[in-house]
Amino acid sequence: MRDEIIAPVKPRDACGVCGGFATGQDMAFLTCFALYALQHRGQESAGIAAGTGGGKKMWVKRGMGLVSEVFPDSAELKKIKCNLAIGHVRYSYGSEGRSPENTQPLRLRYRHGELATAHNGHLLNSRSLRLELEEGGAIFQTDTDSELLAHLVARQGSINLEEALAAVVPRLKGAYAFVVTDGRKVIGMRDGYGFRPLSLGKLDGGYFLSSETCAFDTIGAEFVRDVLPGEMVVLDEQGVRSLRVTGAEQESLCIFEYIYFARPDSNLQGKNVHLVRRELGRRLAREHPVKADIVSGVPDSSIAAASGFAEEARLPYEMSLVKNRYIGRTFIKPTQQMREEGVDLKLNAVQKIVEGKRVVLVDDSIVRGTTSLKLIRIMRRAGAKEVHLRISSPPVSGSCHYGIDIPNPVDLIANKHDLEEIRKMTCADSLGYLSMAETVAAVGLPSGNLCQACFTGDYPLRPEE
Amino acid sequence: MRDEIIAPVKPRDACGVCGGFATGQDMAFLTCFALYALQHRGQESAGIAAGTGGGKKMWVKRGMGLVSEVFPDSAELKKIKCNLAIGHVRYSYGSEGRSPENTQPLRLRYRHGELATAHNGHLLNSRSLRLELEEGGAIFQTDTDSELLAHLVARQGSINLEEALAAVVPRLKGAYAFVVTDGRKVIGMRDGYGFRPLSLGKLDGGYFLSSETCAFDTIGAEFVRDVLPGEMVVLDEQGVRSLRVTGAEQESLCIFEYIYFARPDSNLQGKNVHLVRRELGRRLAREHPVKADIVSGVPDSSIAAASGFAEEARLPYEMSLVKNRYIGRTFIKPTQQMREEGVDLKLNAVQKIVEGKRVVLVDDSIVRGTTSLKLIRIMRRAGAKEVHLRISSPPVSGSCHYGIDIPNPVDLIANKHDLEEIRKMTCADSLGYLSMAETVAAVGLPSGNLCQACFTGDYPLRPEE
Amino acid sequence: MRDEIIAPVKPRDACGVCGGFATGQDMAFLTCFALYALQHRGQESAGIAAGTGGGKKMWVKRGMGLVSEVFPDSAELKKIKCNLAIGHVRYSYGSEGRSPENTQPLRLRYRHGELATAHNGHLLNSRSLRLELEEGGAIFQTDTDSELLAHLVARQGSINLEEALAAVVPRLKGAYAFVVTDGRKVIGMRDGYGFRPLSLGKLDGGYFLSSETCAFDTIGAEFVRDVLPGEMVVLDEQGVRSLRVTGAEQESLCIFEYIYFARPDSNLQGKNVHLVRRELGRRLAREHPVKADIVSGVPDSSIAAASGFAEEARLPYEMSLVKNRYIGRTFIKPTQQMREEGVDLKLNAVQKIVEGKRVVLVDDSIVRGTTSLKLIRIMRRAGAKEVHLRISSPPVSGSCHYGIDIPNPVDLIANKHDLEEIRKMTCADSLGYLSMAETVAAVGLPSGNLCQACFTGDYPLRPEE
Amino acid sequence: MRDEIIAPVKPRDACGVCGGFATGQDMAFLTCFALYALQHRGQESAGIAAGTGGGKKMWVKRGMGLVSEVFPDSAELKKIKCNLAIGHVRYSYGSEGRSPENTQPLRLRYRHGELATAHNGHLLNSRSLRLELEEGGAIFQTDTDSELLAHLVARQGSINLEEALAAVVPRLKGAYAFVVTDGRKVIGMRDGYGFRPLSLGKLDGGYFLSSETCAFDTIGAEFVRDVLPGEMVVLDEQGVRSLRVTGAEQESLCIFEYIYFARPDSNLQGKNVHLVRRELGRRLAREHPVKADIVSGVPDSSIAAASGFAEEARLPYEMSLVKNRYIGRTFIKPTQQMREEGVDLKLNAVQKIVEGKRVVLVDDSIVRGTTSLKLIRIMRRAGAKEVHLRISSPPVSGSCHYGIDIPNPVDLIANKHDLEEIRKMTCADSLGYLSMAETVAAVGLPSGNLCQACFTGDYPLRPEE
Repeated sequence: MRDEIIAPVKPRDACGVCGGFATGQDMAFLTCFALYALQHRGQESAGIAAGTGGGKKMWVKRGMGLVSEVFPDSAELKKIKCNLAIGHVRYSYGSEGRSPENTQPLRLRYRHGELATAHNGHLLNSRSLRLELEEGGAIFQTDTDSELLAHLVARQGSINLEEALAAVVPRLKGAYAFVVTDGRKVIGMRDGYGFRPLSLGKLDGGYFLSSETCAFDTIGAEFVRDVLPGEMVVLDEQGVRSLRVTGAEQESLCIFEYIYFARPDSNLQGKNVHLVRRELGRRLAREHPVKADIVSGVPDSSIAAASGFAEEARLPYEMSLVKNRYIGRTFIKPTQQMREEGVDLKLNAVQKIVEGKRVVLVDDSIVRGTTSLKLIRIMRRAGAKEVHLRISSPPVSGSCHYGIDIPNPVDLIANKHDLEEIRKMTCADSLGYLSMAETVAAVGLPSGNLCQACFTGDYPLRPEE
Repeated sequence: MRDEIIAPVKPRDACGVCGGFATGQDMAFLTCFALYALQHRGQESAGIAAGTGGGKKMWVKRGMGLVSEVFPDSAELKKIKCNLAIGHVRYSYGSEGRSPENTQPLRLRYRHGELATAHNGHLLNSRSLRLELEEGGAIFQTDTDSELLAHLVARQGSINLEEALAAVVPRLKGAYAFVVTDGRKVIGMRDGYGFRPLSLGKLDGGYFLSSETCAFDTIGAEFVRDVLPGEMVVLDEQGVRSLRVTGAEQESLCIFEYIYFARPDSNLQGKNVHLVRRELGRRLAREHPVKADIVSGVPDSSIAAASGFAEEARLPYEMSLVKNRYIGRTFIKPTQQMREEGVDLKLNAVQKIVEGKRVVLVDDSIVRGTTSLKLIRIMRRAGAKEVHLRISSPPVSGSCHYGIDIPNPVDLIANKHDLEEIRKMTCADSLGYLSMAETVAAVGLPSGNLCQACFTGDYPLRPEE
Repeated sequence: MRDEIIAPVKPRDACGVCGGFATGQDMAFLTCFALYALQHRGQESAGIAAGTGGGKKMWVKRGMGLVSEVFPDSAELKKIKCNLAIGHVRYSYGSEGRSPENTQPLRLRYRHGELATAHNGHLLNSRSLRLELEEGGAIFQTDTDSELLAHLVARQGSINLEEALAAVVPRLKGAYAFVVTDGRKVIGMRDGYGFRPLSLGKLDGGYFLSSETCAFDTIGAEFVRDVLPGEMVVLDEQGVRSLRVTGAEQESLCIFEYIYFARPDSNLQGKNVHLVRRELGRRLAREHPVKADIVSGVPDSSIAAASGFAEEARLPYEMSLVKNRYIGRTFIKPTQQMREEGVDLKLNAVQKIVEGKRVVLVDDSIVRGTTSLKLIRIMRRAGAKEVHLRISSPPVSGSCHYGIDIPNPVDLIANKHDLEEIRKMTCADSLGYLSMAETVAAVGLPSGNLCQACFTGDYPLRPEE
Repeated sequence: MRDEIIAPVKPRDACGVCGGFATGQDMAFLTCFALYALQHRGQESAGIAAGTGGGKKMWVKRGMGLVSEVFPDSAELKKIKCNLAIGHVRYSYGSEGRSPENTQPLRLRYRHGELATAHNGHLLNSRSLRLELEEGGAIFQTDTDSELLAHLVARQGSINLEEALAAVVPRLKGAYAFVVTDGRKVIGMRDGYGFRPLSLGKLDGGYFLSSETCAFDTIGAEFVRDVLPGEMVVLDEQGVRSLRVTGAEQESLCIFEYIYFARPDSNLQGKNVHLVRRELGRRLAREHPVKADIVSGVPDSSIAAASGFAEEARLPYEMSLVKNRYIGRTFIKPTQQMREEGVDLKLNAVQKIVEGKRVVLVDDSIVRGTTSLKLIRIMRRAGAKEVHLRISSPPVSGSCHYGIDIPNPVDLIANKHDLEEIRKMTCADSLGYLSMAETVAAVGLPSGNLCQACFTGDYPLRPEE
């Protein structure tokens, strides 16, 4: 949803990473394909670094824009002779500015040759690590954790990237899924809590890492397994091997990946995202039933939950909202009057479906509340008799320290208002959020395995003071 | 679906038109909003002509690309003082080249001032009319029927645009929905058969015409009624008035508007497009039942039909295909091996849903057959046990003479192959097309009111020899 | 001088035309080369039309910008199989808007096939011809005289372009050099007064026409002769032939072509432009001698005149003004203070040359006077003791009706002020304009053969009332 | 000469730097003006860093292209509140790649805040310094000496930039003119040999540094003096102060600055570039006299030398070559036949001047010899009876280690061929190079003060082995 670049209304994932090593494959080309599959995780910049596997100078291209804008010509990528590559798509996150300098993979030279790094996540001790490095004379040209990691690696004596990372990684505190290469091997890592996802796939002639499994389908790879919390996975011409270089805590995968971020055809910890979403809808129907005529979801992310709701409630599922897919980056603002009347360029209600009906409208989350109000206005303008808002997750009341771009807590409607106030502010006839317990149950994993901090305020790992 | 510009796999509508007259409204701005709503009808070029209503020099901007590319800055449009405007989006069609010259609205000067014209459709006697005009010394700078119409109007003596059009329209043979302005009034017309849609809406201070009703919602207008076949509608400061200037035949609205072209939230002849599509699916389930586990539709156009099928068949509807919304214009081609394995950038199957299942896959039409084969390969790769292809319309076997871009008949799979051959070529386990009778019944209008020529070969109006 | 597009300070030629017919040559490619040579005559748009010579559909490309922007890839042009081509570069002129529609060559279809037209000049009776054509039902899509000519040709019955033009040309009143093709032959024409230049060159396998002879050198053609006033020259596979289709008056070639417009390496009526300019300088030195230390010219156009002045005055010629060649289209305005101090991005004085010197500054003309003031400020700031302004042409006091873009007479400094006033306004220590008689004598042609209307007010042909 | 980016035929200066500190001035805006004046020193990228003077976060913009392309909107620059700014234009040089990463000024964070650096020149010990830094764990993201300097500064303990630089500079070996800022002050430095120029000017409210004095005129600054070899100049709110932080050798300013690189209106070591060039021409005439009719220079760089030659030889100076100023970046190659005939898009000879004449053609240098051959062909095609080539400097036979981009010695014609061979290869009737002694004498400084290494092979400072 590209216009959200301009006006983000949903929490946003900060990045997607991928990369692999395979002999006899066009790795830069495959990595580009994988980035297309991960595009929903970041639409602000894209980049690829590729190497022969022999440690020579790497090929790097990165830029602002969609994958298709940074790599307009696929033929070019097939010409690059390479056995390894890593890729990255990103949103800017928090303190990281939106400048071209911050695009990734970051490529740099250090004493043992070249290094290219890409990451998803957010380090909690980056400030103190930076200060320490700066004391030692380091200079920083970007705001990225990738540059920080590169500095740490370069300060280790070892020419062996595994050894250098093994020495560095225990110093990192926070959420991260890194993919790093020195032009000889590709190394992936997940933090000890496993906040951010990273999976391993098998290619002809090698292996591939990706933030989400959907990229494996796109490049013809087979899913092998998720990288474990605290695990380091090394891909080179000998295949794949695993190292444990940092203490592993109880896995705390971000539950919002299931609720909203990940692509429906991805599996996380063995659970299919689409099926989880439908189960969220079913449980929502049981927890917050309502007399209604039809059930509708907000396209595209809430349609699965809405169809689960409909199934459970034995109500017809109807596509009462139609999305205009051509709006793009440009933002043409309606007049005040049009806005109040519920006119919207991006979404429109199907009058013949909605007219005179009691509608259950399912959305995956409420952040500021303005979008919900707009949607309900659209429904009422199209003639809906009643609109019952159902949210397939609990109220978002806290920020994320692990790599998700959630608005400042003061802007979160659930932070300042109770249920009835939110109902009134969104003009809904009734409002129901799925409880934390039911949300976790829908995922089907033990509660302790899922980070729920933005809902509960219970942060597995505290940021630095 | 922009990459279809490069490789069209579906029949394509040639154009969308709109325009209106309203005092006290930012008409150029509203027309731009309406074009966003009509963008699915043409993504190759866009344009707007606007005037004060006093007949002075008009403002015109047109160019290649999406509405958002041609009009990147909405603020600019609010600055144009105008009480009337017309707009146009288009694909190139048949003989009309893809050159910038052919963008519309076409603006020109004639003896009584300026004229701007925009149209959707295809004139059957354009060649003979052109020859006749050329004999009289006319010169043509574009391939558009809009220019032809302008020539005919200019050759009439009358300063009154209604009178001039009244004299000209009876000479036109073919399918058309025109929107024309001389800077004083906006005039809309539909051909006597009503092949192409055009509807009238009410704005504060005036009226608005649009190819589809969905544009009314976007600009805050109220639907009034469809323009009738053979009717001319004049919008000016006195409001709206209707003239009949050509003989009206039995209405023959293009049935493909219901099956594929029109936006789901539009109503044509009082029938909602989304609801018709669901009914097509229901009838398809009755006509071609099959033992299966789940039903899925090809996103986005066939989801309504698939959910109707599921409902009728009492099978679970599942979103087993996920669409990548970020592919854009660029075309990155997979390798031969990847292609054979069913790897696709644009669509992916959800393995956890499909695995081991007997799947009914619903699509709205088969043109060349290559897309169906690709989809079924994707399903099988994801583990589907059986894939039963169901098409919510009859086999397309003929071309269209009324403004739809259907591939050459020799490229239509149904033109050269029988049902069993097509089943084999698409690798489906079974194949069923909805019959013509059931398709018409799903729309809910008398068969005589719908043009079905591309299915039946029964053309209401023959092209010139 | 591209920034003059934004702020024209000199009279500007409206256009350059060229074109030819030669078998076995890449005519579109050669025409592009010729347009590069004519680029100084128009930098706002460029275009080429090319045909096989058999009358088939022509290839046309035109657009806003420099030749290098409209034709960025020369390889493309070599692929066009063509024996004939015409080309055009332009400024917008007077009533012709600056819109993309007005780019040339204009290509259009008429009863006998296609026609492409390009012109330099200005028709005086275009308004009445347009009205007459509009009465007959013609429509106009551009403001160009090229479109007008095409209409007139199309209304003639003859399939033979020569015949059609022969019938049409006598109706044209004004200044013009046309190059026209119907895809079978290329025809060039000059008006009966020969206001605008057009020359004929010989290529291997054919002939070529160009506004200026410098284009012949660029494409390897040999100069043959100037096209005569009132002459029509037809190029086709039989070679070249000449027709007289309109009355020829006494030749009145625009004298400003010698003074400023034409390229120094061009010859007009057998006179080399550079040598004429030097002679203008010599005569200026004789007519307005002054005690001084050095002579300098305003780059680039006045350097020839200045060196002639220096030679005659036996004073050293010095390049005291340096031009920045990288300013381009962008216009970065200095602050008020900088402006007053004589700071300028585009021109700078060489202090070591100018300091303490009495400088003769030679310029080719004064239009508004603001540039002269700026130049003299720059000289004084660099330490010049005295600055004597010498102009190598008479005071410009009237507008041009024959295709030159001279500012409105009310903006011409010489129209409202006498010599002493102009001297004061430009802060010159002394000021001298070359007299009309000496200007004509420097060209070396009889006075009656040169249009001097903008200096004398003596217009050979009056515009319509 | 922008197309030389694609096909460099002349030695090229690597960069231009500038920057200053002045209260109450729009420093970013003035720096942009100064960059326009220095554009001839580098046309590949441009950039500006600006700060308030209080050490806060700096504003930086840099990009590929001309100054006018990187800073298209001057209004933007006036909005930046800043008392200090530095600027840079560049060609890529030697090992520095042509990638966007290498644009300058480089901005980075270190322990004491931010640093922005820009330089002209070439460090000879960069490799060993890099290795040493890498040993200490440093990472490098660019190939620039600017990044190297920043690393060295960051490793010094001092918060005081002067102190840090004072400690660092003695370690640098090679040619450099640096401009550095920490957002509090602007510091300029020249290496101990003074290979590259840097001058100091006075602004209202402060001071300004620039590679060439021509930039002072453009921004309304007054020339104060050249920065001395080995001198460090500090500009801050207290004005300007000078430090000597490294040993000063005998000044060895690049003599090619006078011959070709610098702008004619610049003064280096008190000598005006234009006047030096004229003197080069005079001495060339004395050293290599020839019987001839006219003298011409290759525009634009050799016109001064040619006019000096003409003056001394008492021959008429004629502009026999006309340069097309509109060719730009695009490269449209003539056909083989056209090339052999001496057809050229960029330069044309004036036939009426050249025909039947014995021409002395003056150029500033010969590198590969191909350009000379082309020019002489053009002259002969225009009818020149004889062409005598005179070069206003000695034969270039060695590469430059101090920041000038001279082709590999194996490509230098004078490296492999003697005078007579070169004459034959360029088809000249006679050939004369100005001797080293006369070249130095024309500059008017002691020979020991000028680096002449590319002519003599006598390198003041040897590169690392």
